[in-house]
Amino acid sequence: MEKKEGEGEGEEEQVVNPWTVSAKGGGKIDYDKLIDQFGCQRIDQSLVDRIHRLTSRAPHVFLRRGVFFAHRDLSEILDAYERGEKFYLYTGRGPSSEALHLGHLIPFMFTKYLQEAFKVPLVIQLTDDEKCMWKNLTVEESQRLARENAKDIIACGFDVTRTFIFSDFDYVGGAFYKNMVKVGKCVTYNKAVPSFPSSFPHLFGGQDNLRCLIPCAIDQDPYFRMTRDVAPRIGYQKPALIESSFFPAMQGETGKMSASDPNSAIYVTDSAKEIKNKINRYAFSGGQDSIEKHRELGANLEVDIPFKYLSFFLDDDAKLEEIRKEYGAGRMLTGEVKQLLIQVLTELVERHRRARAAVTDEMVDAFMAVRPLPNMFN
Amino acid sequence: MEKKEGEGEGEEEQVVNPWTVSAKGGGKIDYDKLIDQFGCQRIDQSLVDRIHRLTSRAPHVFLRRGVFFAHRDLSEILDAYERGEKFYLYTGRGPSSEALHLGHLIPFMFTKYLQEAFKVPLVIQLTDDEKCMWKNLTVEESQRLARENAKDIIACGFDVTRTFIFSDFDYVGGAFYKNMVKVGKCVTYNKAVPSFPSSFPHLFGGQDNLRCLIPCAIDQDPYFRMTRDVAPRIGYQKPALIESSFFPAMQGETGKMSASDPNSAIYVTDSAKEIKNKINRYAFSGGQDSIEKHRELGANLEVDIPFKYLSFFLDDDAKLEEIRKEYGAGRMLTGEVKQLLIQVLTELVERHRRARAAVTDEMVDAFMAVRPLPNMFN
Repeated sequence: MEKKEGEGEGEEEQVVNPWTVSAKGGGKIDYDKLIDQFGCQRIDQSLVDRIHRLTSRAPHVFLRRGVFFAHRDLSEILDAYERGEKFYLYTGRGPSSEALHLGHLIPFMFTKYLQEAFKVPLVIQLTDDEKCMWKNLTVEESQRLARENAKDIIACGFDVTRTFIFSDFDYVGGAFYKNMVKVGKCVTYNKAVPSFPSSFPHLFGGQDNLRCLIPCAIDQDPYFRMTRDVAPRIGYQKPALIESSFFPAMQGETGKMSASDPNSAIYVTDSAKEIKNKINRYAFSGGQDSIEKHRELGANLEVDIPFKYLSFFLDDDAKLEEIRKEYGAGRMLTGEVKQLLIQVLTELVERHRRARAAVTDEMVDAFMAVRPLPNMFN
Repeated sequence: MEKKEGEGEGEEEQVVNPWTVSAKGGGKIDYDKLIDQFGCQRIDQSLVDRIHRLTSRAPHVFLRRGVFFAHRDLSEILDAYERGEKFYLYTGRGPSSEALHLGHLIPFMFTKYLQEAFKVPLVIQLTDDEKCMWKNLTVEESQRLARENAKDIIACGFDVTRTFIFSDFDYVGGAFYKNMVKVGKCVTYNKAVPSFPSSFPHLFGGQDNLRCLIPCAIDQDPYFRMTRDVAPRIGYQKPALIESSFFPAMQGETGKMSASDPNSAIYVTDSAKEIKNKINRYAFSGGQDSIEKHRELGANLEVDIPFKYLSFFLDDDAKLEEIRKEYGAGRMLTGEVKQLLIQVLTELVERHRRARAAVTDEMVDAFMAVRPLPNMFN
């Protein structure tokens, strides 16, 4: 029996679901409490070590540093993998905006790592139908955004021989639609459908017991809890989950990245100059008000956005540890940390921009073709 | 502005919608009142005469005798037809049972006449998805029933060069799914989709203004009123309707044909002996209790089921008129009328059974193939 969210709790409690994320009293999200509320499991060091051992490669930064910090049935997926059984990955995106910000890239960067480390197939759903239905978008505009977003996703470096990207408007029908109705008999919620391998007969024909692992942010947990409730009722395996914390806004953990405030996030379309300005002017600092006080007390790393962002995107563990020590002790100033972050993010965004520019329409077609995946489990 | 059904009326009022049909105080449906409640139009003699003139053939019995008695925008469809513009027909069935009864055949018999008289294409929707969703049926069983019902429908004599039969499980996707989402933005109701020609690119590609005429029983009016409300909001033409009264149960107009009481209806699978027994034993008679009284007062044709059934299925107007006069005056007895009805229905059911036996799986495939219709408007 999986835990349900408490109803009728005091309104000052934290609320985390796919529609709302708000912390208690406007503060920070209490992730330990969230794990307890949701009834999912924490990813501990022994699980990270096990993944290291099984994949014979260093765990991704997002795993080493607890960005992906919670899971459901991940141990069972690893048990099965160790026995030589296969699984597949499912992630997706609702294509509501043209330009992605860094928070949008996180699940795709992590999913790419999982695909390479475990050598497993991946399906990526673009829910253009849902965006058309709930946002004020036409069918044509939703489909156009889906294709544009597919280019950003492909630019993350996915392997076309192991990856199937689909837009609902293109792909819904046949086996997928039958699973939509089966699921619909239980809940009115169609993001459950890609969790079941029979939705993809061109990939997994006959392998109806293949397990599915879903990397996602933890606010999606209530959705997939429904999926997991529904699965046995329609004769399918429950999907496993690996869940991340939230990528903070520029203004700090209590802020929200929002399309209406372009200074709340770094977009993949931002120029080097924009990145520099945004970080220097808006990235919330945990440093002290005066240099004297800073040298004395050090930076509050719990709230410092430049340090948080570096912990997501600076690969070098030793360097990050050095910053933690030096900046935390006041021997390093905010300006220096911001300089490093500007350099890291400018490189990341520039690399993404070059990769995206190289994505042709033919490549999009190749990823989105309904076809078997030749190197699916190789 | 189309009329909406009155809410909050006294509970003894008649209720007619796709889910409930019940008359005031358990009596007969007041069709005049229904037209007034729904805000549709009565089909008067001048409209029947106009159809006669435009099609150069005798109007169908169901039109001559007021079985199809109401409409929306039928005059506009005829105006367009007279100007040389085309339209298409849409009807359908929810395949929830194996054996059809005569009431089920009525819309198909009438639609076949309309198709032949106006020489127009026809789409027939089998809502196997809806039946799977709401009845306790598996996907596979719903699809099997859809195919079996398609055989009964084809047995009504439709022209494969002008008719496209589709099951939702087979056909939903692509252009059709896009219209499902467009409609879904306005109402959660997908039977609207086939009313719009853009749902069928293989038939009407580019003819997005083609009008649609829907033959149906009047209890479907609330559904299609929604469709008509939605149409202009998504840039489509409103479908026109031609609406029938209800085919009465064997036990009389106040009874209900029900699968749980096989004696309430004649099924197309009934043997000659079953038809004879059912009519003799269960068909509600408007004749008097004794022969003497019957000779004196005559039969009450308002409630007499054998006469009602003959008015649906006896083609010969002169013969029906003779029965009306003789039986109504008491010179003809119920037994004689029942004998004639047994003969008419045995022939009809026998003809249907032979026609259905001749329907091969290849014929079903041919009707259900996603293809252009070569003689669509010929």
